[in-house]
Amino acid sequence: MNDLINTCILAKKASKTLTSLSEEVVNSALNLSATLLRENAEYLMEENAKDIEFAKESGKSASFIDRLLLTKKVIDGIAEGIEQVASIVSSVGKTEYSYVNEYQGITIEKKKVPFGLIGMIYEARPNVTADAFALAFKTRNAVILKGGKEAINSNKAIVKVIKIALSKCGIDENAVMLIEDVSRETTLKFVKMDKYIDLIIPRGSASLINFATKESTIPIIETGTGNCHVYIDEFADIDKAVEIVFNAKTQRYSVCNACESLVIHKNILEKALPKVYDKLSEKQVELRVDDLSFEVLSGKERVVKATTEDFYTEYGDAIISVKVVNSLEEAISHINEHCTKHSESIVTENEENAKIFQEKIDSSCVYHNASTRFSDGFVFGLGAEIGISTQKLHARGPMGPDALLTTKYYIKGNGAIRK
Amino acid sequence: MNDLINTCILAKKASKTLTSLSEEVVNSALNLSATLLRENAEYLMEENAKDIEFAKESGKSASFIDRLLLTKKVIDGIAEGIEQVASIVSSVGKTEYSYVNEYQGITIEKKKVPFGLIGMIYEARPNVTADAFALAFKTRNAVILKGGKEAINSNKAIVKVIKIALSKCGIDENAVMLIEDVSRETTLKFVKMDKYIDLIIPRGSASLINFATKESTIPIIETGTGNCHVYIDEFADIDKAVEIVFNAKTQRYSVCNACESLVIHKNILEKALPKVYDKLSEKQVELRVDDLSFEVLSGKERVVKATTEDFYTEYGDAIISVKVVNSLEEAISHINEHCTKHSESIVTENEENAKIFQEKIDSSCVYHNASTRFSDGFVFGLGAEIGISTQKLHARGPMGPDALLTTKYYIKGNGAIRK
Repeated sequence: MNDLINTCILAKKASKTLTSLSEEVVNSALNLSATLLRENAEYLMEENAKDIEFAKESGKSASFIDRLLLTKKVIDGIAEGIEQVASIVSSVGKTEYSYVNEYQGITIEKKKVPFGLIGMIYEARPNVTADAFALAFKTRNAVILKGGKEAINSNKAIVKVIKIALSKCGIDENAVMLIEDVSRETTLKFVKMDKYIDLIIPRGSASLINFATKESTIPIIETGTGNCHVYIDEFADIDKAVEIVFNAKTQRYSVCNACESLVIHKNILEKALPKVYDKLSEKQVELRVDDLSFEVLSGKERVVKATTEDFYTEYGDAIISVKVVNSLEEAISHINEHCTKHSESIVTENEENAKIFQEKIDSSCVYHNASTRFSDGFVFGLGAEIGISTQKLHARGPMGPDALLTTKYYIKGNGAIRK
Repeated sequence: MNDLINTCILAKKASKTLTSLSEEVVNSALNLSATLLRENAEYLMEENAKDIEFAKESGKSASFIDRLLLTKKVIDGIAEGIEQVASIVSSVGKTEYSYVNEYQGITIEKKKVPFGLIGMIYEARPNVTADAFALAFKTRNAVILKGGKEAINSNKAIVKVIKIALSKCGIDENAVMLIEDVSRETTLKFVKMDKYIDLIIPRGSASLINFATKESTIPIIETGTGNCHVYIDEFADIDKAVEIVFNAKTQRYSVCNACESLVIHKNILEKALPKVYDKLSEKQVELRVDDLSFEVLSGKERVVKATTEDFYTEYGDAIISVKVVNSLEEAISHINEHCTKHSESIVTENEENAKIFQEKIDSSCVYHNASTRFSDGFVFGLGAEIGISTQKLHARGPMGPDALLTTKYYIKGNGAIRK
């Protein structure tokens, strides 16, 4: 506990020194971090090997180990990511609004400023360690990192190298801190350090995010679980629909913007669904379908009846649920009821229907004739991504570095008093 | 409970109809609400009389009754407030960011959109009923109001009149709903209706805000308790300092942007403090002071030694605490430790000190040579004010109508799939 408080105090103190750093110094420190990570690739891989060995011993899956593994190529990718963050322009320090109140004799400026100290909680992905540091530091925030325990040796090594880069640039190395005690008790205390930490960003599985939402006394930006929908409207171009559903479902199964549920208008059901089925069968996707779809696909392989639960499920796998609706309105209300407010798409050639769908669907990203897989900070031109927010407060959808900024009013008078 | 859920369902449904309303229709409905409130002043005063009688019977204070009372003049002021909201321009529907990703074949637009359904919890001030409706409706949000039980008859009457105006303009009158069951149990259930309500804004006393923060499962914008500071720097113009402290402390005692604590550099203590004392004595302000100030003011009336608690206290009364510091840095760290992150001011002729103070003080509004009393949406040119946020997430400082907006990404392709 004392260790944790001490970590918070040191990081908070460092955060106060960051606001006065020039963009040049910040970018130099980021670029040096990238260089030193590359130069110390052997050391990072040695430390990573300890984590890999332990993960293998404890019988972790191949995909788990794949995400954990640091190779020269992976380290180069991490370094490139940091250099990419150095190259973008954030809004820190910019004036968002200004106003002169002549009657009262004051000028008002609303500026973009850092939150201060950010806490990041994530799982066993060492790349997030570098990523989170780069985005926080770029926007003049200090950051305390709490990564998954299975990556602790890798994370310690990465943070050690970054701290050297900061020191060499004359910057307080406590601007990035790693919590080395990876017990659950410490995480529980971490999310209650509201005296020091201004913002918590949990990044990872639904259970991690739920934990943070439930336990934290610090403001949170929830990043996203995604039960994403594609709706094939009665006026859809079926070829586009087939390609979009196939891409949204199968391009990558584990990501939050993958399609988990297909909604289809009954007037186009018999024409469209068999084609969608055939395309999805190229990748052996299982369909969990309602009664009407079941009739259309009767006797086909990998088609089973859906339960109520299916329509609330983010599979993250080669499975998709299918629901037939009688109208656009029914599609909208079904989706708003079951989605996680992440990304939904309508396939239609009817502009009016597209407009209604995009207005009424209450999700962060609403698509027309496009795959849900596009929800991503880089694709959206934000230069980098901290995560995808599924909340409405502060930041919604893919978040670039500016999501790590708040605002502050600077007011100047010359002895001004309120009349 | 069923009543409450029903209220939420009806209001949520109404919220969906608001996004397609034109600015003309919205403003007509606001102006008609104002007109009908004026025309029904007698009815409103009759209903208000029931609340006033009950308040008198239960021995409420004169200031309580003053805030509760509806006169023709007060009703006219309420109507003017609504007309003012009609006259401003909100950002609803505006595109905040757009990007064409040619490689992926999509266009991305990030638009300002309403939250959906807002819950407002406040105390026995009937004007907030009209105010909250006007701001929510202007930004195309439906609103459920939960006012103080002592104002229930007044609130019912105001909402009844507004609903008539909405109906006459062809708008779903459930866009504004009042919770008539004013029990604490209902309020507790209200702040857990996260299935329907997108945002809760508590407005009033610290205990009300703490209740909402602690109990709500819905995202909240905290509005402000204010333990505001004025710091007299060693390079201050003493005349300006005296006027600013006097204005910030005494212009209105009960408001959240009133000064509650004076911090003063020891090099200017003997010259400045007696003058501040003399000026504050015009209004019989009591000073709760640290040891050094006590020496300087020894033997004076209304000067007592401060306890540790005093420096954390928002008096809302003719009392001010006084703390002497040895440096600008000590002033900053004392203020950051004790303030509620609302509004703080430095009085100095030294521009460098002002710059450091404004950067390092972690409050929503930081002043240089001006009274803290300016923290207000109207003074800041926002056209209206929902409250003053003391949080960093989403909205910080005085909030205009745009604080009731979130964003949504609209993405369009022509069969676009992710490469």
